[in-house]
Amino acid sequence: MNKLKNDTFLRALLRQPTEYTPVWMMRQAGRYLPEYNQTRERAGDFLSLCKNPDLATEVTLQPLARFPLDAAILFSDILTIPDAMGLGLYFAQGEGPKFERPLRNEWEIRGLTVPDPDTHLRYVIDAVTQIRKALNNEVPLIGFSGSPFTLACYMVEGGSSSDFTLVKTMLYSRPDLLHHILDVNAQAVTAYLNAQIQAGAQAVMIFDSWGGALSHAAYHEFSLPYMKRIIDGLIRDHDGAKVPCIVFTKGGGLWLESIAASGCDAIGLDWTVDIGEARKRVGDKVALQGNLDPTVLFSNPEAIRAETGKILASYGKGSGHVFNLGHGISQFTDPNNAAALIEAVHELSKQYH
Amino acid sequence: MNKLKNDTFLRALLRQPTEYTPVWMMRQAGRYLPEYNQTRERAGDFLSLCKNPDLATEVTLQPLARFPLDAAILFSDILTIPDAMGLGLYFAQGEGPKFERPLRNEWEIRGLTVPDPDTHLRYVIDAVTQIRKALNNEVPLIGFSGSPFTLACYMVEGGSSSDFTLVKTMLYSRPDLLHHILDVNAQAVTAYLNAQIQAGAQAVMIFDSWGGALSHAAYHEFSLPYMKRIIDGLIRDHDGAKVPCIVFTKGGGLWLESIAASGCDAIGLDWTVDIGEARKRVGDKVALQGNLDPTVLFSNPEAIRAETGKILASYGKGSGHVFNLGHGISQFTDPNNAAALIEAVHELSKQYH
Repeated sequence: MNKLKNDTFLRALLRQPTEYTPVWMMRQAGRYLPEYNQTRERAGDFLSLCKNPDLATEVTLQPLARFPLDAAILFSDILTIPDAMGLGLYFAQGEGPKFERPLRNEWEIRGLTVPDPDTHLRYVIDAVTQIRKALNNEVPLIGFSGSPFTLACYMVEGGSSSDFTLVKTMLYSRPDLLHHILDVNAQAVTAYLNAQIQAGAQAVMIFDSWGGALSHAAYHEFSLPYMKRIIDGLIRDHDGAKVPCIVFTKGGGLWLESIAASGCDAIGLDWTVDIGEARKRVGDKVALQGNLDPTVLFSNPEAIRAETGKILASYGKGSGHVFNLGHGISQFTDPNNAAALIEAVHELSKQYH
Repeated sequence: MNKLKNDTFLRALLRQPTEYTPVWMMRQAGRYLPEYNQTRERAGDFLSLCKNPDLATEVTLQPLARFPLDAAILFSDILTIPDAMGLGLYFAQGEGPKFERPLRNEWEIRGLTVPDPDTHLRYVIDAVTQIRKALNNEVPLIGFSGSPFTLACYMVEGGSSSDFTLVKTMLYSRPDLLHHILDVNAQAVTAYLNAQIQAGAQAVMIFDSWGGALSHAAYHEFSLPYMKRIIDGLIRDHDGAKVPCIVFTKGGGLWLESIAASGCDAIGLDWTVDIGEARKRVGDKVALQGNLDPTVLFSNPEAIRAETGKILASYGKGSGHVFNLGHGISQFTDPNNAAALIEAVHELSKQYH
């Protein structure tokens, strides 16, 4: 086992005592950083950047060179799995992800197979290995995947959607087909995250970006059970250390009790939830990660410090809190404001530990 | 007082006994109806349709001619108030509402004035008068307005937004300015809804379409208190009858307890909330309106009936439930599926009354 110089993040996820509240930011390696944009330009485009382990390593480390973050997260895309399944991921200029071959016919759905991470997703696993090495045990590395339902949204819609008409029509008209997609996705995500863990990821996060678009009943039938299935199949101890698992359903604040019962170690919260109330609801079952509205970073260091202080105070004393934004950092954020956030978390949180 | 032939909707809002669960659909007079599209074509465009009381009356009644709905809702736009304030509402082809003169400078914000509904919004009040007359006391007429915060979103952003960058930047950087806009908006909405009530609206609904984009703390500072202020200023009895008030914060399922304490008679629910759990949380304080995912209407009559049955069963026995969608009906809905929904509500709900 390699000894981490800063394991505050992992201890907080396991609700062990820490000296302060650890912090990282979703999408911390991203377009708000000029150095990221330079690397991306060298790569040519976003997908080439994801698929080049050297460059993925470079951008993963960039925010850590700027800010005293308590964790690194693998630079990748959430749609690598369906791409490896042959759906043809591409990014149209200014439009977000799209698939050349979205799932439209039953035969396409019945023909889906689980990609082998060590061959079809080799570039991700290589990136994990390289990043872990480059981190030199300074801070832990987080691996991640999209959730089975979130992947299915893109696979069926063929891209982003505002109302998820196609995938929800399938959900209500042909639930058997959607369940089949989700079953294949859950197997694929499990293998993918386990390969990341074996390559060196010290915690994993499941991004359920669109689970919150479902009804209460549909979430508990089509999203959460498949995440639970993944959690049940994850490697939970590796290289002499526990590998905590974080589940983040954006818009899932109503369902914290059932998410907490999924077997995950921590729940990611968006900013609509009061984190103190969330803590009361989940008790000592899980840690909580979140939950500053990323638009707070458009204000100024004083306001950022004040809002950060409110979240820390709402969570209150004791471990089990990983500070984060409630969603990815915007490309229009001033990096100085991100610095102000991280400084505020570290300074203001000491009194609660 | 004019005696309503069908007052089931009003009784349900007041949690009085009914024979079945009443139903209406948000945006029930809309583009999924071919007859609506014909009238709209005659009007020229959407805004001309809103501003012509004869045509607004015509489209308000169209869904009632097709379906045995338990309420009519004024056909209008949620942005009539800022338009009357001089911001210049327009609809770009396929783009949603926009303002020619969004609020960008402090002097513009400080110069906002409360429009007089009887002059600047005369066309709406005339439409209410005409619709009420045309309804001939068959079913009650619902008046409505956007919430102060939701109006402010459009007024500051200048149109729809995915992340509300401008209004939230103001919220965190210059809360005094946003509070000023909200104060003016609350006064304007109160006067507007009271004018609708005096012209014949028998219930009113406040649409807080974007309150759910706020953090827990911000919602309780920038959206809910201004809705409460409106409710405190509403005419609650008119023409010998109570005038119930419904508050609908889309994405507000976490905040039902505080919404219930606002003084409203009913809470609109989107589909992410389990209505039975919502009922437990609000107790006998308020009625509940909702909450079928509108995308269920893309499936088939059997699935629609099954999903409708689940919501009715979750709410359970007794009055206090108005069936509705959790959001406006989509323009791509087959009207036959809307008919199937309304029939299912009426048939399946009898056992609970």
